[in-house]
Amino acid sequence: MKLKRRWALTLGIATALLNHSAMANNTLEEVMQARGLTQKDVLAAAKTYTPTGGRDEYLAFSSGGQSGQVLVYGIPSMRILKYIGVFTPEPWQGYGFDEESKAVLAQGRVNGKDINYGDAHHPAASETAGDYDGKYLFINDKANPRIAVIDLHDFETKQIVTNPLYKSAHGGAFVTENTEYVIESAQYAAPYSKDYVPLEEFNDQYRGGVTYWKFNKEKGRIEPENSFTVELPPYSQDLSDAGKGPSSEWSFTNSFCTERYVGGIERGRPPFEAGCSAKDTDFLQMIHWKKAAELVAAGKAKNINGMNVILMETAVAEGILFLVPEPKSPHGVDVTPDGSKIVINGKLDTHVSVYSFEKLMAAVDAKKFEGKDAYGIPIIAMQDVLHTQVELGLGPLHTQFDAKQCVAYTSLYVDSTIARWNYCEGKVLDKISIHYNVGHLMTMGGDTVNPDGKYLVSLNKLAIDRFNPVGPLHPQNHQLIDISGDKMELLYDMPVPLGEPHYVVAIKADKLKPAIRYQSGWNSRTNQPSAFKTRAGREKIEVTEGKVEVFGSTIRSHITPEIIEATEGDEVIIHLTNLERAQDETHGFAMYGQNVQLSIEPGKTVTTRFIADKAGVYPYYCTEFCSALHLEMQGYLLVKPKGYQATVSEGKAGAVYTKAEYDKQVATNIETQGVIDSVVGFITSQNYQDFPPVVASVEDATDQLNFAKEAKAKADAAAAKGDWQNGALWANQWWQYQVKAADIGLRAKAYLQEHGSKPVK
Amino acid sequence: MKLKRRWALTLGIATALLNHSAMANNTLEEVMQARGLTQKDVLAAAKTYTPTGGRDEYLAFSSGGQSGQVLVYGIPSMRILKYIGVFTPEPWQGYGFDEESKAVLAQGRVNGKDINYGDAHHPAASETAGDYDGKYLFINDKANPRIAVIDLHDFETKQIVTNPLYKSAHGGAFVTENTEYVIESAQYAAPYSKDYVPLEEFNDQYRGGVTYWKFNKEKGRIEPENSFTVELPPYSQDLSDAGKGPSSEWSFTNSFCTERYVGGIERGRPPFEAGCSAKDTDFLQMIHWKKAAELVAAGKAKNINGMNVILMETAVAEGILFLVPEPKSPHGVDVTPDGSKIVINGKLDTHVSVYSFEKLMAAVDAKKFEGKDAYGIPIIAMQDVLHTQVELGLGPLHTQFDAKQCVAYTSLYVDSTIARWNYCEGKVLDKISIHYNVGHLMTMGGDTVNPDGKYLVSLNKLAIDRFNPVGPLHPQNHQLIDISGDKMELLYDMPVPLGEPHYVVAIKADKLKPAIRYQSGWNSRTNQPSAFKTRAGREKIEVTEGKVEVFGSTIRSHITPEIIEATEGDEVIIHLTNLERAQDETHGFAMYGQNVQLSIEPGKTVTTRFIADKAGVYPYYCTEFCSALHLEMQGYLLVKPKGYQATVSEGKAGAVYTKAEYDKQVATNIETQGVIDSVVGFITSQNYQDFPPVVASVEDATDQLNFAKEAKAKADAAAAKGDWQNGALWANQWWQYQVKAADIGLRAKAYLQEHGSKPVK
Repeated sequence: MKLKRRWALTLGIATALLNHSAMANNTLEEVMQARGLTQKDVLAAAKTYTPTGGRDEYLAFSSGGQSGQVLVYGIPSMRILKYIGVFTPEPWQGYGFDEESKAVLAQGRVNGKDINYGDAHHPAASETAGDYDGKYLFINDKANPRIAVIDLHDFETKQIVTNPLYKSAHGGAFVTENTEYVIESAQYAAPYSKDYVPLEEFNDQYRGGVTYWKFNKEKGRIEPENSFTVELPPYSQDLSDAGKGPSSEWSFTNSFCTERYVGGIERGRPPFEAGCSAKDTDFLQMIHWKKAAELVAAGKAKNINGMNVILMETAVAEGILFLVPEPKSPHGVDVTPDGSKIVINGKLDTHVSVYSFEKLMAAVDAKKFEGKDAYGIPIIAMQDVLHTQVELGLGPLHTQFDAKQCVAYTSLYVDSTIARWNYCEGKVLDKISIHYNVGHLMTMGGDTVNPDGKYLVSLNKLAIDRFNPVGPLHPQNHQLIDISGDKMELLYDMPVPLGEPHYVVAIKADKLKPAIRYQSGWNSRTNQPSAFKTRAGREKIEVTEGKVEVFGSTIRSHITPEIIEATEGDEVIIHLTNLERAQDETHGFAMYGQNVQLSIEPGKTVTTRFIADKAGVYPYYCTEFCSALHLEMQGYLLVKPKGYQATVSEGKAGAVYTKAEYDKQVATNIETQGVIDSVVGFITSQNYQDFPPVVASVEDATDQLNFAKEAKAKADAAAAKGDWQNGALWANQWWQYQVKAADIGLRAKAYLQEHGSKPVK
Repeated sequence: MKLKRRWALTLGIATALLNHSAMANNTLEEVMQARGLTQKDVLAAAKTYTPTGGRDEYLAFSSGGQSGQVLVYGIPSMRILKYIGVFTPEPWQGYGFDEESKAVLAQGRVNGKDINYGDAHHPAASETAGDYDGKYLFINDKANPRIAVIDLHDFETKQIVTNPLYKSAHGGAFVTENTEYVIESAQYAAPYSKDYVPLEEFNDQYRGGVTYWKFNKEKGRIEPENSFTVELPPYSQDLSDAGKGPSSEWSFTNSFCTERYVGGIERGRPPFEAGCSAKDTDFLQMIHWKKAAELVAAGKAKNINGMNVILMETAVAEGILFLVPEPKSPHGVDVTPDGSKIVINGKLDTHVSVYSFEKLMAAVDAKKFEGKDAYGIPIIAMQDVLHTQVELGLGPLHTQFDAKQCVAYTSLYVDSTIARWNYCEGKVLDKISIHYNVGHLMTMGGDTVNPDGKYLVSLNKLAIDRFNPVGPLHPQNHQLIDISGDKMELLYDMPVPLGEPHYVVAIKADKLKPAIRYQSGWNSRTNQPSAFKTRAGREKIEVTEGKVEVFGSTIRSHITPEIIEATEGDEVIIHLTNLERAQDETHGFAMYGQNVQLSIEPGKTVTTRFIADKAGVYPYYCTEFCSALHLEMQGYLLVKPKGYQATVSEGKAGAVYTKAEYDKQVATNIETQGVIDSVVGFITSQNYQDFPPVVASVEDATDQLNFAKEAKAKADAAAAKGDWQNGALWANQWWQYQVKAADIGLRAKAYLQEHGSKPVK
């Protein structure tokens, strides 16, 4: 009894403790001195530091490079909030472990082979009228040309489409102004066929291309059957951008290695890097995608490997494909917010080149070309369409835009600087050093029709000496730069601990409305009710010849069922529904030796399936620390040998309980209920309904108290029959629910006190 | 010529730009107002913010939970520096993709089955004389009882050992005072045999245990043959701790579910959580590990599944195993820095209980027991050994220590608070709220004989409303607390973006000496020279019946070979050595459709192996953005059908170059060399040898310039023969190396200017 009384005391004093106000032990000056901080550092700290419970203004979605994932971080705090499993299985999320997500990854098989990673490069956020709508994110895999669709409702990957033509695709994902299409361009040229084609036939048989994947916004899925590809020469296509406003029916894709060099260093020939950058210019490829879609609808596409392909000769004949020389080995091709200009970054030039869309259209309309390439595609002369060229420095790579009229930012890889410049007047405004060797850069909404500017992130490819050393493999360094003032100011260095991001998009946080739970019994990957949804109390095990199928559940702190029996060789299928409704009450499910690890967020139903190929004992348990009795959230799969005959009679395990123990537990429970009532009393005395998180907690606590009632009824029933064993255990379970209710109630009470709730009449 | 001249200009003006000093656009007060920061927030910001290039005082090594990884972050900046692949394949690191690391993961197979995740729980740092020595890290997998060894020389996983007895092991890893042993205890009881044993035989046939894995510090590897296990009853063993100082020959392991309840909610019985927490007390299990090791040496162990096992009856007879009741369902068992006391956290009690080691020894010596458990193990009475009990609050879970005498910190799960208390005098000193539901907590060196105190990290299991929402699956929240003053102060909320950490250890950064490169041609997983090391210029392809074996290399910006030919059905084996010596110059290697993704840090040799089962064209490329010409770092695997006969004569691909183009390139190169010379002139005019990063850069740039010389020689030779094709291409390659040298030189120059170099005479 003494132990239990102490609980009550603690519940009583918790209020005072939660209100304690810590005194600062140091002055700001002392801290600055001790840590060697300048005033500028403190200002940067104040511009980025986000106190507990604070919110970031933007969420950045970054490719994870060869980790195959997408990472999400807040700006300006630069705290990484989530790694989303996309192309690579990830067990914390159960991604690639539960059958539902395995089905997504299976869509990404290449030539029938499972691919367990991706080289994720360029995320694109879905747009409406050229602005982010916060609904979907797309990301490409360069190594195995694929595009993944992530739903920003729950931050999960829902679909992967595999390009049936390419063998490499760096230039994705980019979206048209209303996300009609997701653009993916090829990179290293290869035959469209799956067959062997010798390099000697490179010019004739190897091809590039730009694919326009049709996106169905209602369904949130790409429709491969309504998608198409425009065939291109075997240049290495690189990044793309869709037009905006006046240019919105066009897309722009740059290229390198228009030399069509095929390598051969092992034969003493110069390496690819020399062969692929020998010419002073490569080609910008302009495609009228809107007309292209009409051509497909008109039956002018050829079906190759199941993809609608507009052949080059058709594209040329129909006037939807043009080339413009651009400074050599370009990376970014970026359309200005008003859609009037296209900025080209030639990595091996010192300039950015600004093309005028109006001049481009004038040349197209006048059919004024300087010639054709080897494939008959008309070439528009650079000087006919240049708005301006601006000398920025060594290695211009990618450009983003500001809210301020005509202001752009360009990354300079070799110079390790960011340049701010005016693309209307063609002049440099400011420069800032970064550390080191920036690839892409990104401003807030910087590739939309309405950039916010404000912050810029420099995605540096080398960190070298910026952080504490962690071995030969270094993190990347994302540097946050304040671009709101007259001079750019470095605010923060963020190491990327996993993967090599290539590009990031930042969406204003208030555009995102993520869910905190699913409808009960939900298959999150198909976004439909699961066929295996299980309600509380309806859990069951179906045993048929060679198969054991479990329809189970999880809720604080038990897995139902706790014992599963199977016979060696059986297929075991376990469906689990998380019955929780409370925010953040995810349960996990891991099992010894069967490679089983599930993540079951509130409401979700997931499935694991395996062959119980060896007789034995296989403990399972919850892998998310969900409650004080989490460690006790366990069970056993018992796999019997074939033809097993029990050799022992029903034995006994564990302790035996008496009436005294039952009585003691019941007394404790009554006392605990008194404490809970006092917490409930406090909450209901306040205007708690003005605080949504508290309303949710009250709902959760009420659930737990209802469970407590059910356990109490079972304890009472057992006691009435003189079954002290079950009486004591169910009384204990009743108390467990009380403890969970107290836990939730205390958090709610603290929340009210910290957020200044007021008494209600 | 014009384009090239601009490079020179830019090289010239770079200095001025790098020195630009940004003006603050806002005052601190304005920023505070705009962002709603209090003075306390600004102080916390100043205590955690780490400017570019700054170093953290501590590196924290955190378990990644069911992600199966370990993450590393800096304190106080709370920036995550690395996720280390441990139990789960991770492609960014090539972990589980190259053959060398696959061999490590294969050590962790369970019953012959590949396990592609782990439930990583408790990291332990290697110790010498009870203090961290910064050499190794150990981590357990709860789901598939395994221990991994990570070398802190390069932050890579080197070994995984699988426990042959357990089916679950939560209580690891913990080390003895000189890392003689790595301790791993069982969790959910199961038979030692791999056979089916019905739950009815739970009391007799199911077992727990504590395993002592022998660690060889010289070799950096666990020696399973020199390891042993002490058999324990089928209680759920939980955390352990090794003794220190006077108690250093002992280890302490707590337990829950000493009720030996076996579940049955699906049969209407109370769930595990009630059955496993019905009793008021569970047992602390004390083992004299030093004597146990002597018993093993004396042949008193039984070999079970290849493991030396000291049976309970032997342990009891030899006087090395004792039980002490402890408040129910405990988690942490933590030995004080001086080794004189053991702190027990009973999750369902409101107290921490402090046991006196002196009193424990007195009881052992006097053979003063209050009885025996069902397995004959002597039970020491709690009241005989208690130093004190302190009421802290709801759900005490884990305790860590301060540098200050007798000061400890305990996490309170249900209360969502941290208590600071005095374990000598038994009184509470301070409390602070955390958000929410803390599991473990951690102070700097807090489990060593010399804790630093200073900071505390609260590993909160629920984040709920702390961060911008990112869907139903929430990040964990690690809160940094300043414990240097009279009152604890919350400094920072760090979201954990991947996995659910359970425990963290923080090592003073200056104890770590990570490498930045390997010896050239190194197998990092065996820590020996690779048999497949390849030197520059010695690359080769060996073709034998059914096999193509490549001995290749990578260096900015080419992969050698650039073309690999194979025949359908061949086994393709590719060994790649990264010839770089420069810090952070990692190259990657990905190939279309073959699930190939390697990470090759400077000096490393790695291997990929696959069957080229389908004829076709398979591009490959470097996946780490290593240089301006990174995208051109590519190649092709060409897989011919069996019996393929060439049908075309040697064709032509790409462009043809003239003498004019050769001459133009050479002129550019001469001009570029002038610019490089001016950068070199600046560097060598300064005391650059006082700056190690610059010395390394100079070495790297010199490498590149030597490569440039070689390319120049080839260009000259081709030109001498009138071969303008190769002349122009090699001249371009010569320029490529110049650009890399300029890139490195510019970084070095900027470094000198930023770090106040001085002219030398």
